[in-house]
Amino acid sequence: MHGRSKEILKTPQIKKHCRSLLVLLSIQAKATMQRRLPPTLLFFFLFFLLGSSSKMRRPHPCKKLVLYFHDIVYNGKNAANATSAIVGAPAWGNRTILAGLDHFGNMVVFDDPITLDNNLHSMPVGRAQGFYFYDRKDLYTAWLGFSFVLNSTDYKGTINFAGADPLMNKTREISVVGGTGDFFLARGIATLMTDSYEGDVYFRLRVDIKLYECY
Amino acid sequence: MHGRSKEILKTPQIKKHCRSLLVLLSIQAKATMQRRLPPTLLFFFLFFLLGSSSKMRRPHPCKKLVLYFHDIVYNGKNAANATSAIVGAPAWGNRTILAGLDHFGNMVVFDDPITLDNNLHSMPVGRAQGFYFYDRKDLYTAWLGFSFVLNSTDYKGTINFAGADPLMNKTREISVVGGTGDFFLARGIATLMTDSYEGDVYFRLRVDIKLYECY
Amino acid sequence: MHGRSKEILKTPQIKKHCRSLLVLLSIQAKATMQRRLPPTLLFFFLFFLLGSSSKMRRPHPCKKLVLYFHDIVYNGKNAANATSAIVGAPAWGNRTILAGLDHFGNMVVFDDPITLDNNLHSMPVGRAQGFYFYDRKDLYTAWLGFSFVLNSTDYKGTINFAGADPLMNKTREISVVGGTGDFFLARGIATLMTDSYEGDVYFRLRVDIKLYECY
Repeated sequence: MHGRSKEILKTPQIKKHCRSLLVLLSIQAKATMQRRLPPTLLFFFLFFLLGSSSKMRRPHPCKKLVLYFHDIVYNGKNAANATSAIVGAPAWGNRTILAGLDHFGNMVVFDDPITLDNNLHSMPVGRAQGFYFYDRKDLYTAWLGFSFVLNSTDYKGTINFAGADPLMNKTREISVVGGTGDFFLARGIATLMTDSYEGDVYFRLRVDIKLYECY
Repeated sequence: MHGRSKEILKTPQIKKHCRSLLVLLSIQAKATMQRRLPPTLLFFFLFFLLGSSSKMRRPHPCKKLVLYFHDIVYNGKNAANATSAIVGAPAWGNRTILAGLDHFGNMVVFDDPITLDNNLHSMPVGRAQGFYFYDRKDLYTAWLGFSFVLNSTDYKGTINFAGADPLMNKTREISVVGGTGDFFLARGIATLMTDSYEGDVYFRLRVDIKLYECY
Repeated sequence: MHGRSKEILKTPQIKKHCRSLLVLLSIQAKATMQRRLPPTLLFFFLFFLLGSSSKMRRPHPCKKLVLYFHDIVYNGKNAANATSAIVGAPAWGNRTILAGLDHFGNMVVFDDPITLDNNLHSMPVGRAQGFYFYDRKDLYTAWLGFSFVLNSTDYKGTINFAGADPLMNKTREISVVGGTGDFFLARGIATLMTDSYEGDVYFRLRVDIKLYECY
């Protein structure tokens, strides 16, 4: 199932450190054999190497994906099309209509199609499965725990996500906390963007996934 | 509580790289002192080392466990034995009987005994605590978030899991997203297998845990 | 949003290994140039280095924070002040009052203020957003999934947590499974302590966060 991972690069920084060491080693080896290395040069390299590690640098992603998923909330009339359902509600709510107070307390379970573009009717490449709930009474905010279960020619495997979704912001960041298959032990960041929102029934999220730890 | 972690091996690949560097270093040291190393040999080593890092290899687990847990869902008649309860249901369901449409929308909270073998009556080595919900109306699939809280002579600590569970598959993989105690900062994969299933009341999962990051 | 990460130190152990290698390298370089290194010294270093990696050592945290959050559960009378609400309950419970049997099966969604000290009325530095549920009928235990959404002069970003909370224990450990912004890709341990508990309406948790992987 997870036999196709492509990269061993665990952490780019450390890899780079080891590479630098190798280069340094080979320079030093050649130099000592030819007895031409001025010690200053060696210490310059050492200084450079150690100095670089305290600087601020964001690593480059080892894998990037952009995917969309489509959520159609059951509202009592759309049983055939609905891909999600309200399963929890506060004392003042019910499970057919999202509650007042910014849906505070509504919990939704979903199994949504994932597509490569923003068209609900495109061929799905997998399913987004998980739950979200609205957690604030004076503002729309949510919290998400879910998986992308991908099964296409390009990707086989799952990616697991968790995090807060302050959905009134244009972009929000959640964590990639793990993965299986092609995404074995993945870690990274997913940036969520609400790509469409139609009443309380349909929304579409664009998910920009950047993985920083790949095997 | 977490004073017994056994391994510092963070990522086997990088460790291996560092080891290779050390070996290379010692060979080079001896050779340069004896002035006998042909430069070609050194470059062969460097080539081998750098080349190996772009190949596909799955690391070896740094820790393995096989455990079972047992879930007895409350059904209105088994209050004494039940280890889990339905706490969320869709509009068309209730919290005593799992709903139709493949239990879509049912959310269950559990505190299940963990055993070393497949016998419900074996001495528990800990508790599996968390939740799952059924998330699809045309197929049995679930999503799980839970912890193994282990407290035995062999293991003390917790392992935290999350992921999609397409439970009609013989095996499914979820993520180990963290741990404490003996499983300090663990990461890995857990393979789930339904070991027994009796109506909608009892099931037993076999969990094969492979950790790839241990401290 | 996540432009201010401060450390590249991925894993202290490996960093230390690389540093040791560098030191060893420079000693060796100087020595070979002066032709004074006894081979024994080199092998002593190698032995020390390799030996150290199999010993038990807990790494030092790369970042530490102590924060408090305050949960006021809606009980039918405190709509104005409540920061959380019961959204799931077992068949024998309701969503206004926490159920009997140690609240087993109650699921609560929250958006709680985070403060730097134990005073509910201190200026919040962010919001704790997520859910918890009680998962055992013969003992108070809970399970938590939540985020700290921090937005202060000191910290901007989110930290994501998950884990079992056996809340009758003085301290409990859960996992930091990821982060964004200043906490980009964070991993670590959070130690929870119940700092105050007033009936079933208010509690305050002290959270000691220790991150062991920082970027």
